[in-house]
Amino acid sequence: MRDPWPITKEETEPNVFERVAEYRPPFSWRTRLFGRPLSSADAPHQTIGKTVGLAVFASDNLSSTAYATDEILFVLATVGIAAFVYALPISLAIVMLLTILTLSYQQTIHAYPGGGGAYIVARDNLGELPAQTAGAALLTDYILTVSVSVASGVAQLTSAYPFLFPHRVVLSVGFILFIMLINLRGVRESGVTFAIPTYFFVAILFLTVGTGFYRYMTGSLGVVVNPPPLRAPVMASVTLFLILHAFSNGTTAVTGVEAISNGITAFKEPKSRNAGITLIWMAAILGTLFLSITFLAVKIGALPSEEETVVSQLARTAFQGQGLLYLATIAGTTLILIMAANTAFADFPRLSALQAGDGFLPRQLTYRGSRLVYSRGIVALALIASLLIVLFQASVTALIPLYAIGVFLSFTLSQVGMARRWWKVGRLVPGQEVQERGSTLRYDPRWALKMGINGFGSFCTAIVMLVFASTKFRDGAWIVVLLVPAMVVVFYAIHHHYQDLAAHLSLEDFGSPQRMSRHRVIMPISGVHRGTVAALRYARSLSDDITAVYVSMDPAEAERVRSKWEWWGEGVRLMVLHSPYRLFLEPLVGYIEEVAAQRQPNETITVVVPQFVPRRRWHNLVHSQAAIWLRMALLFKRGIVITDVPYQLE
Amino acid sequence: MRDPWPITKEETEPNVFERVAEYRPPFSWRTRLFGRPLSSADAPHQTIGKTVGLAVFASDNLSSTAYATDEILFVLATVGIAAFVYALPISLAIVMLLTILTLSYQQTIHAYPGGGGAYIVARDNLGELPAQTAGAALLTDYILTVSVSVASGVAQLTSAYPFLFPHRVVLSVGFILFIMLINLRGVRESGVTFAIPTYFFVAILFLTVGTGFYRYMTGSLGVVVNPPPLRAPVMASVTLFLILHAFSNGTTAVTGVEAISNGITAFKEPKSRNAGITLIWMAAILGTLFLSITFLAVKIGALPSEEETVVSQLARTAFQGQGLLYLATIAGTTLILIMAANTAFADFPRLSALQAGDGFLPRQLTYRGSRLVYSRGIVALALIASLLIVLFQASVTALIPLYAIGVFLSFTLSQVGMARRWWKVGRLVPGQEVQERGSTLRYDPRWALKMGINGFGSFCTAIVMLVFASTKFRDGAWIVVLLVPAMVVVFYAIHHHYQDLAAHLSLEDFGSPQRMSRHRVIMPISGVHRGTVAALRYARSLSDDITAVYVSMDPAEAERVRSKWEWWGEGVRLMVLHSPYRLFLEPLVGYIEEVAAQRQPNETITVVVPQFVPRRRWHNLVHSQAAIWLRMALLFKRGIVITDVPYQLE
Repeated sequence: MRDPWPITKEETEPNVFERVAEYRPPFSWRTRLFGRPLSSADAPHQTIGKTVGLAVFASDNLSSTAYATDEILFVLATVGIAAFVYALPISLAIVMLLTILTLSYQQTIHAYPGGGGAYIVARDNLGELPAQTAGAALLTDYILTVSVSVASGVAQLTSAYPFLFPHRVVLSVGFILFIMLINLRGVRESGVTFAIPTYFFVAILFLTVGTGFYRYMTGSLGVVVNPPPLRAPVMASVTLFLILHAFSNGTTAVTGVEAISNGITAFKEPKSRNAGITLIWMAAILGTLFLSITFLAVKIGALPSEEETVVSQLARTAFQGQGLLYLATIAGTTLILIMAANTAFADFPRLSALQAGDGFLPRQLTYRGSRLVYSRGIVALALIASLLIVLFQASVTALIPLYAIGVFLSFTLSQVGMARRWWKVGRLVPGQEVQERGSTLRYDPRWALKMGINGFGSFCTAIVMLVFASTKFRDGAWIVVLLVPAMVVVFYAIHHHYQDLAAHLSLEDFGSPQRMSRHRVIMPISGVHRGTVAALRYARSLSDDITAVYVSMDPAEAERVRSKWEWWGEGVRLMVLHSPYRLFLEPLVGYIEEVAAQRQPNETITVVVPQFVPRRRWHNLVHSQAAIWLRMALLFKRGIVITDVPYQLE
Repeated sequence: MRDPWPITKEETEPNVFERVAEYRPPFSWRTRLFGRPLSSADAPHQTIGKTVGLAVFASDNLSSTAYATDEILFVLATVGIAAFVYALPISLAIVMLLTILTLSYQQTIHAYPGGGGAYIVARDNLGELPAQTAGAALLTDYILTVSVSVASGVAQLTSAYPFLFPHRVVLSVGFILFIMLINLRGVRESGVTFAIPTYFFVAILFLTVGTGFYRYMTGSLGVVVNPPPLRAPVMASVTLFLILHAFSNGTTAVTGVEAISNGITAFKEPKSRNAGITLIWMAAILGTLFLSITFLAVKIGALPSEEETVVSQLARTAFQGQGLLYLATIAGTTLILIMAANTAFADFPRLSALQAGDGFLPRQLTYRGSRLVYSRGIVALALIASLLIVLFQASVTALIPLYAIGVFLSFTLSQVGMARRWWKVGRLVPGQEVQERGSTLRYDPRWALKMGINGFGSFCTAIVMLVFASTKFRDGAWIVVLLVPAMVVVFYAIHHHYQDLAAHLSLEDFGSPQRMSRHRVIMPISGVHRGTVAALRYARSLSDDITAVYVSMDPAEAERVRSKWEWWGEGVRLMVLHSPYRLFLEPLVGYIEEVAAQRQPNETITVVVPQFVPRRRWHNLVHSQAAIWLRMALLFKRGIVITDVPYQLE
């Protein structure tokens, strides 16, 4: 027997037909909001070059220059202004850490051209548990990146316009939903949208520090006019712990450095090369800006304060007043902080799709929406980040201690993974190549050096993480310390379920099924009407063994049903269940279970439910949805098939 | 073929079996909360005598003595203390109105032994529209009775204990839920629970006014010590409008008088006689207390005030101080106000079940729960009243203007209906009896007098209603003026739907259905696994014309499915739908619709959906619920039957 409708592709087997479903979503508000749907074939075109790539993946990283120097000075100020001499050495140490991280991720990008964040590196080199830990740490951190950066952007806005302060939660959630919308349109369009503010920020900051250096050289720089008040020192002398604390506080500057390695696949070919160059650009810009700001800040006598940021003090000193260039610097900083959330929107969906693909997160996250983005991951990120904003009332102070631990945990795992990889490379003989899961191991004579770099890097990031976790534990870091293992447990529960399911659904060692020998039909009825008759007609086409069941709460009504059935029942047996306690579902399910308990092997019981479909949706409200409840009650019973015979009104 | 399991009742027809479902809900938290389930056969035992009946149906009515005098004095005080001489005549007029209403409802109770509130009287004598209007007015008022009386009870509590004020909304909702729970246990138990506070209130008030009269006779009553401050008069002289306003304000005393006539069926046999006597008791108690309070209040120089009620001033004057008896009076008043809500809980579910039985409200409201009460009506009332409490923040001042219009509208309709009935009685010849829908018309020589009483009563209540609506229109009465017609429109929409449905489901003039000639099966699959094989086995038992459909988003995956199908597909045709836009539902539904469009008369299309049933509920979260979405998409298509073949893991 052949199919009667057109087949657009040639027949491949006598009984297998293929065709391309021409269905495309019609133009609607969705199209207007998200852009025209993209076919899977368009995927390769949805990639970005280095210029846009820098804007998409660097905004998180670069935005930290807006506050990293402040964070160092805050710690040093607990001893006094004299301790500020340590600011530049500490910044240099952080730039060294940045260099190590850049080298490490440069190597990762080339070793894992298919995209290799901490998750993949840990998975391929350290095993499942470290990989899932890295995944949990990164997902937590991406969510916090969104919440923290949007909240701090809004905080900049509300300190300039205090009347907006009561609306900060709504504003923050609004910004998150806006960024979500742009990301649902797809990576290329979001890249273009975000390129302008990112480059504007970079340009205006270079102008600020450039002007600052020029004035410094010509001796016209001077010091900050009316610096904000400094709190009295609380500590007597500089200790090692203080230096470490200042260092770990300043390392907030390097958060986001891993973003590019997660997003390699978004780049144009050659992906690794483009991504690698973008990473170097990013690190160079970040290092230059960060060192320059710290250097100039100390020179002009800038003071850390909740009231005015160091960048603001530097800008008004360099530009000699609060003119247009000063305002542009503040505006650019505000914008980049909000844009920083976009990096998380680029990476969170990719990472969650990866984990879902490995079976540690719900499979739905691997689904690409009409614009070829992992739309469910994007929506999930926006919702969770908004929830955090609401819970913490958009307070940056409350959110900050939760932040950065995840990043440094993933840095550490990633670098330990890379070190392990170099060790494996060192075991190879020259010229030998070994194919591994996600990458190719190739002999490299400098494997020991590279292993050293990664090992040292992982040591540094582990120290930073521990200092972070211990100094900020009470302020909220404990939440992350508990959350990450909890997430790992959930990941494993999901994974276990998928594996269990696959084992039970597998057709291996599964004998050919026998045909059913007997087919029994039970048809619950609520009365005798056209819907019942239609369902009966259907039931008769299934089997000759049919029992109609009527649950009676009123003997008079039962009598009416009985006499009507005599005429319309076509001789089919009717069981009247009197329900003295006026229960409907329980006696019916009880009866069906009784029948099911007596079923023979290869006998199937089909419950045929006449389902009335009203003409309008609201009509459902005035009908007891007994059919739906029955379905839910029977869904977990073995060997019972539920058939809904819809009866629609004309 | 005979059923293999035991039949507890004798066979009534060769193919009709009956049995009593032994299923009774097991002992559980439900039993603990609501009491043991009651069989329908217990219904006659769940009735109440006159003593409990008074407590159940009179608390609303009697509680108004706690504020009715205040309401009159408030209006008179706008002219000054001199106008208080009108208080007693106005109260007498209200008691006359009460007498007319009592006579009218006495007649109603005997004419409608099956329960005859305004709804039934209007329905049987005036027609559908007046009946539905009365129904809407009463339902609105019952809801407001709950909200207003609980809110005012809580207001008494919070004025005594101001620290509870911030929790007034939670407290009010808590009280409503508590009363709901007691009512869900059934009318008899709620009656017993409520009898104590009602009789306590009546006893303590009689003691108060008795003491007052004794002191008045012996000349030792005196005047109120430290009366609350009186606002300065704002009007120059007493006008007719002022008297009418004071009168209509005072008529709040008669609200709730209709409660017994709605609840006749809850009484023990002889129902009409018991209900009638209870009504007279109630009216006598109300009239005596109300007149006594007004008389004594004027004598002791009590002043209306937001700070202290007239009852409180009277009690401390009569008991000469704020001793134990004074406190008992205040406590009794607070309790009865909260209990007043119980009357609405007794009547609202009965009325809504009546209207639902007539097809003007969702049929589910006619269902009696395990304790033989209309549990859905009880829950609905509690939810709507709680919603009002939350919306109006438990403010009595905001709720009061909405109240009482509905009562007087229903009074008017009920009495017009009774007048019409007497007119019909007057058309009969002596000795003649005519059976009408809900009652028997019997010739009565005094029909003209009775018609006059009812006519005059309806005139009075109509005036009160109009004065009410106009003087309080802006304060919130407009909501009710809009709401009642809107509710009537909804009632008719529901009625129209039920009638339309009955016409379409009717088997009159419905030819015997033909047997199906052809049966086509479409089976969407998500892959080839044990679940698919089980569903295929089932599909093969239905028909030989089967098409499996696979929606492919990934050509490599499609190839795997195709080759697996060659082995497991048993030669059944497979249609692969390539979906370049990664849509699942749309191509599938499109294909099914295409097939359905070509279906012949008497051909049925069954969509067999392999439905995976996970072992734990949370597992559903990690599966895309495609089967459910498919069901919802197909439910409205003509001639398509949906069969779920569940596949459970061991």
